[in-house]
Amino acid sequence: MTLRDDLNETERDILAKVTKGEIPYHRIDSLAGKEAAVRIRRYAVEDSYGVELEHIQLCSLDLEAATKRNIENMIGTIQVPLGVAGPLKVKGEFAEGSYHIPLATTEGALVASVNRGCSVITGSDGANVRIFQDVMTRAPVFKLDNVVRAREFSDWVKRPDVFARMKDKASQTTRFGELVGVEPYVAGNTVYLRFSYDTKDAMGMNMVTIATEALTALIGDEFGAIPVSLSGNMCTDKKPASINTILGRGKTVVADVVIPKALVGERLKCKPETMVDVNYRKNLLGSARAGALGYNAHAANIIAAMFIACGQDAAHVVEGSTAITTMELTQYGDLYCSVTIPALAVGTVGGGTSLGPQGDCLKLLGVKGPGTPPGTNSKKLAEIVAAAVLAGEISLIGAQAAGHLARAHAELGR
Amino acid sequence: MTLRDDLNETERDILAKVTKGEIPYHRIDSLAGKEAAVRIRRYAVEDSYGVELEHIQLCSLDLEAATKRNIENMIGTIQVPLGVAGPLKVKGEFAEGSYHIPLATTEGALVASVNRGCSVITGSDGANVRIFQDVMTRAPVFKLDNVVRAREFSDWVKRPDVFARMKDKASQTTRFGELVGVEPYVAGNTVYLRFSYDTKDAMGMNMVTIATEALTALIGDEFGAIPVSLSGNMCTDKKPASINTILGRGKTVVADVVIPKALVGERLKCKPETMVDVNYRKNLLGSARAGALGYNAHAANIIAAMFIACGQDAAHVVEGSTAITTMELTQYGDLYCSVTIPALAVGTVGGGTSLGPQGDCLKLLGVKGPGTPPGTNSKKLAEIVAAAVLAGEISLIGAQAAGHLARAHAELGR
Amino acid sequence: MTLRDDLNETERDILAKVTKGEIPYHRIDSLAGKEAAVRIRRYAVEDSYGVELEHIQLCSLDLEAATKRNIENMIGTIQVPLGVAGPLKVKGEFAEGSYHIPLATTEGALVASVNRGCSVITGSDGANVRIFQDVMTRAPVFKLDNVVRAREFSDWVKRPDVFARMKDKASQTTRFGELVGVEPYVAGNTVYLRFSYDTKDAMGMNMVTIATEALTALIGDEFGAIPVSLSGNMCTDKKPASINTILGRGKTVVADVVIPKALVGERLKCKPETMVDVNYRKNLLGSARAGALGYNAHAANIIAAMFIACGQDAAHVVEGSTAITTMELTQYGDLYCSVTIPALAVGTVGGGTSLGPQGDCLKLLGVKGPGTPPGTNSKKLAEIVAAAVLAGEISLIGAQAAGHLARAHAELGR
Amino acid sequence: MTLRDDLNETERDILAKVTKGEIPYHRIDSLAGKEAAVRIRRYAVEDSYGVELEHIQLCSLDLEAATKRNIENMIGTIQVPLGVAGPLKVKGEFAEGSYHIPLATTEGALVASVNRGCSVITGSDGANVRIFQDVMTRAPVFKLDNVVRAREFSDWVKRPDVFARMKDKASQTTRFGELVGVEPYVAGNTVYLRFSYDTKDAMGMNMVTIATEALTALIGDEFGAIPVSLSGNMCTDKKPASINTILGRGKTVVADVVIPKALVGERLKCKPETMVDVNYRKNLLGSARAGALGYNAHAANIIAAMFIACGQDAAHVVEGSTAITTMELTQYGDLYCSVTIPALAVGTVGGGTSLGPQGDCLKLLGVKGPGTPPGTNSKKLAEIVAAAVLAGEISLIGAQAAGHLARAHAELGR
Repeated sequence: MTLRDDLNETERDILAKVTKGEIPYHRIDSLAGKEAAVRIRRYAVEDSYGVELEHIQLCSLDLEAATKRNIENMIGTIQVPLGVAGPLKVKGEFAEGSYHIPLATTEGALVASVNRGCSVITGSDGANVRIFQDVMTRAPVFKLDNVVRAREFSDWVKRPDVFARMKDKASQTTRFGELVGVEPYVAGNTVYLRFSYDTKDAMGMNMVTIATEALTALIGDEFGAIPVSLSGNMCTDKKPASINTILGRGKTVVADVVIPKALVGERLKCKPETMVDVNYRKNLLGSARAGALGYNAHAANIIAAMFIACGQDAAHVVEGSTAITTMELTQYGDLYCSVTIPALAVGTVGGGTSLGPQGDCLKLLGVKGPGTPPGTNSKKLAEIVAAAVLAGEISLIGAQAAGHLARAHAELGR
Repeated sequence: MTLRDDLNETERDILAKVTKGEIPYHRIDSLAGKEAAVRIRRYAVEDSYGVELEHIQLCSLDLEAATKRNIENMIGTIQVPLGVAGPLKVKGEFAEGSYHIPLATTEGALVASVNRGCSVITGSDGANVRIFQDVMTRAPVFKLDNVVRAREFSDWVKRPDVFARMKDKASQTTRFGELVGVEPYVAGNTVYLRFSYDTKDAMGMNMVTIATEALTALIGDEFGAIPVSLSGNMCTDKKPASINTILGRGKTVVADVVIPKALVGERLKCKPETMVDVNYRKNLLGSARAGALGYNAHAANIIAAMFIACGQDAAHVVEGSTAITTMELTQYGDLYCSVTIPALAVGTVGGGTSLGPQGDCLKLLGVKGPGTPPGTNSKKLAEIVAAAVLAGEISLIGAQAAGHLARAHAELGR
Repeated sequence: MTLRDDLNETERDILAKVTKGEIPYHRIDSLAGKEAAVRIRRYAVEDSYGVELEHIQLCSLDLEAATKRNIENMIGTIQVPLGVAGPLKVKGEFAEGSYHIPLATTEGALVASVNRGCSVITGSDGANVRIFQDVMTRAPVFKLDNVVRAREFSDWVKRPDVFARMKDKASQTTRFGELVGVEPYVAGNTVYLRFSYDTKDAMGMNMVTIATEALTALIGDEFGAIPVSLSGNMCTDKKPASINTILGRGKTVVADVVIPKALVGERLKCKPETMVDVNYRKNLLGSARAGALGYNAHAANIIAAMFIACGQDAAHVVEGSTAITTMELTQYGDLYCSVTIPALAVGTVGGGTSLGPQGDCLKLLGVKGPGTPPGTNSKKLAEIVAAAVLAGEISLIGAQAAGHLARAHAELGR
Repeated sequence: MTLRDDLNETERDILAKVTKGEIPYHRIDSLAGKEAAVRIRRYAVEDSYGVELEHIQLCSLDLEAATKRNIENMIGTIQVPLGVAGPLKVKGEFAEGSYHIPLATTEGALVASVNRGCSVITGSDGANVRIFQDVMTRAPVFKLDNVVRAREFSDWVKRPDVFARMKDKASQTTRFGELVGVEPYVAGNTVYLRFSYDTKDAMGMNMVTIATEALTALIGDEFGAIPVSLSGNMCTDKKPASINTILGRGKTVVADVVIPKALVGERLKCKPETMVDVNYRKNLLGSARAGALGYNAHAANIIAAMFIACGQDAAHVVEGSTAITTMELTQYGDLYCSVTIPALAVGTVGGGTSLGPQGDCLKLLGVKGPGTPPGTNSKKLAEIVAAAVLAGEISLIGAQAAGHLARAHAELGR
């Protein structure tokens, strides 16, 4: 298509072979330098489809690291616009102070909406936040002979001595992680063991998968049961599931605030009563009528934008979307608002957290890397996310109460 | 903190005032040039928190457009690594041919996994894909006096002449969109009207919100009912909900493929019978036991990565995660695999699709901008996404069947 | 065991052979008179297990009819205590007036509780009731070759000419029933056709099963698809399912009432505000947090007791239990209460309705047998059930608000 | 209407006053003898509505006991036809041997269907049954000041010393029951405490309500929190709820059996493969597609019929309906079948178990009254119910596999 004159001869030769199908894409990394490999692959794709991909080439990431840990067959980067909302005053156990919330999104009006919510919360002296549980789970599935054997397995798993050996075994696979529980669930001859771990500052999916594989080896040795699959979907990872909304997965975190009646009128242009009514008919009754697992307005929007900004796993937005938002009148006529996020999977080490821009956002929140003591940074991040979701809920319910959602959308192109 | 010598004097003055709190962040855009505004805001944030955000400043986006349509309070961009998987042969009604799938992710092993799935599908002569429905919904909520009045409202809404007037009214708000249905749902005195629209190549949330606001005006005029909120959560947007898995929202799209037994052995290192068993105990029985709304392995992973790459709304991963994956033995011992995505919200115009890098990914798939006729590009994109999800499911279930999920994770750092 | 001297010689001979296993239980009916057969079987059971079953022998049912239509291997009857609550004023479209509600139950306090609710409703000038939909469904499941064929099937099913032929075919199998709709649902190569029928005064499961079998013959002839099963669980019969709560099955019926503030205080010993708060935290928030499909206090109690009394299918209590109860303050400080029952399966002909005692209860409500015009009796029954459920909800929430649930239970032995 | 000559003068006087509204129905019991009171009330109802209720008057129940514990405002009894299915061989831990299953139903074909299933199970050497958990729950709901206080409450509840005091307090309210656990669930400022009790042979709802009321007094004294309601719907009683399917309520019981291939052909007229396919597409895939909480064919039918026969609470059919049925091919081509009932609420003391006919059915199963040691009778009953449900599932899936469900219904009038 073009001259590709930013490739040297060897590289151009590789490109030719790739185009002819003689070299597969994923082999290029071992034949050329990191940066050249990305470029060769992009050219190959361009040649194959007769398109020019000019905008994805901009990249300031550490390619060595990124291609080792974050991506395969890399051809460039996607730039997601990054905005901030704030300041947001948070009164958590780990996050105490005011923060600007980084939001990476392409949906116009979102940052503005969260920003308004932050202003309301901060003007109400901040959001209380508390974490009620913090475990990452993995649930391998086993097939036993029959229900008699399933019961024996279930009994065996619950034995304190067995758990002690499991805890020890798991600890050999990870420096920070710790097995904290296991619960068997049965369906006929099929048994699911839902293992729970404290994974400290890591989101922990990788850690718990490795530890659980070690545990299945122990189970094979001691009980003779071999897993059908390391994950039997009772974990449950990246699918909406009641087991997570009820028992939690990742952080179970709750934020609330009381907004003075006057502030509701001034900033949200409506009355507490109206917001209570909107929240009741929409987030509770409407979600119930829809057979929903999430009882909120748009928690997923804020979580998605913060997750992309902070190098979290974007697919974990699914679990986050099951939040419950409540709004109530206080006895003084003020507005009580809360958001309960049963399953928030976040980490400040591993995954996308080590990439440059994502790391910048974590730095902005003061949570980059492992905390002191371990686990405190990811907990702090979770508290900030919850407060930001609360801001988003307050703003949107306020807007709907004030009747101008559509107008805002029309104006801001969302 | 630093000299900020890339700001001119006026800009430095603005920064000073912003830092002192005299100018709010969102006002900066009207006081400085687009690029300078982004920089001033970034500096302000850096100064406030005493951090240096060096990696988020890289940006080749059209700031004029981005700050108008996609983001507020912009301070930079997040770069998400972009890889490709493929070629993936798709036999849809709109997507016919082979494609390289763009995936923006920070989760190592994902692209490699999808790539393997693509290879299996393409080696099996491609995936069939069909779209069964294509509507975007918006459901305002009304409070009536009582159930008698709710019934009258429900009856009125179902009248053909009323629907004709609604259709006409809606058409005045949009060039491409079309009202195709309305269904009332009642809970006591509360009535939800779930409006369905054909939004052609747009994902359509903005379009249907505007059109629905116009319809609520008509309803107010003709029936005298005023909406409590433009969205009553029976839409249902960005929350997992049975109403979407049953009735669909966005595209309802299904993909399948028959993989010859030999290919399963060669590429996936296991037997069709084993994959059928893993899928049964994990994706069906395990999800059922977990009270899940999604019966798949990791559809959300693929959808999230493609959505970020292609400028889709990342929060819509929630709906996508409710996919159902099936695997069955054929009478010849081959492996039948399918994935059913009841609610896939995609578009090729609007939202993040007009940003440079995101547009590159749409170009790569041949779906940038409006299709001819309108709607064909977004349908083509939906078909490709479904085939890619199928690839992801086949690869992961294959890996779990082959027993090396954890090892793969350990090696690839995921 | 005993002399069995109420048997004649032939009958005693049959008993001996039954006891020795030479005659199976179900053969007895063809060898002895109806009444003797019941007695012989009871004696055989008594002899086998060495027990005396003295209380089940009382029976005034028409054995000829009962053993033909309602039961096999009959050994006697269970007497369920029958009480009445009322009068309950109902302002429906079919039920207009005051009724005493027959409740067959063994749970102490239930009748008393409903009675209190009736008194409150009647004292508030009665409950409004409206039916929003009335269809019985049956959903056979088909396996097609692949998604391409599934799409063709789905398209074919939606053709007006095909539906016309189906309607005609169905009408040949039933005098009263009428096919009113069909909706295809797809999961890979599997297609579910959810047929909806108007079954007039019959609950209709039998009718729709027969009609649907005829339709599958037509489908086999015309399209060549053979059902895997006449029911594919998307009907959904006797399992809690969102498809029923959203789309309805049987009658979708809603009842409401406004209770003056003074009456709440006088009869329920609490304040409207407290009941609103209990209903909010329990029926809405608590059910949401529990991952429930039912948002009520104890709708199942009332439905079970009325169903047993009125000869309905007791297993259909399952669908009824998914009701939604709301309580709201009116602008005058009175209490608005509603109950929405999305899927209430009732009939006044067929099933247990023709048995004597059950028929008495239908007579009491003025709904025995077919209505004029057909369908009006079952609709009237549905309206009365809904009003009775509303009474039960008001009473229990009132009791919980007044803080004396446990005491009531302790006193009444429930 | 009639002479009422079976009333004496005093009784006729009462009747007259009742009819005039001078004496309310529930006052009659204190003015006349038990039997006369029932008769007077029936006459009053007859007179009010101008109907004759001749069939409900038959009654051999102990009226003294029934009107004290089971019913208020009694006017007679409903006779439900009672049949038996069996023998059913059960290999449980508490039920070991063969049983005839009592089924009280008005739905023709049900007993015959279960009977066929019993024959298949018994012919396969019986069903294994195991109980995995046995607790009855009650979850009061509390409103705290905010999430900070909710967290303190949650922490306090989890303290071992607090639990010890709760256990002690609960034990003072019941001779047999025992508090075995408590788990807090939070939604904003609202906290649900799900208390679990071992209730031995009682179903236990009454017991746990009384005990929980005592515990709320302790909580009020020690922590200062007052319950909004003694039940906050996270129990969850008589509503379908994931918390019960996941965590269990009442007995969590699983039954399975391997049916030799030849027996499937001989008795069920089909092949194991076909039944596996029907079960897969109907009970798993169909239920998933319908957004169901129950993955079975008709567990509710069997549970309803056994519950009415055995004096259980018929509204608890709701929880039972969430069973999961699995069918799989063994390596030898035989058919493995299982049913998992997560939440089966049964008891052999209290409720309707003390009524004559209901007691007869319990005697028939050898479970009348308290077991030795306490709890063994209700566990035995649960095992038998589970095996009977398995029989029902096998028979119906077999019938659907053999394609003759509709015919059976047509012939038997169901």
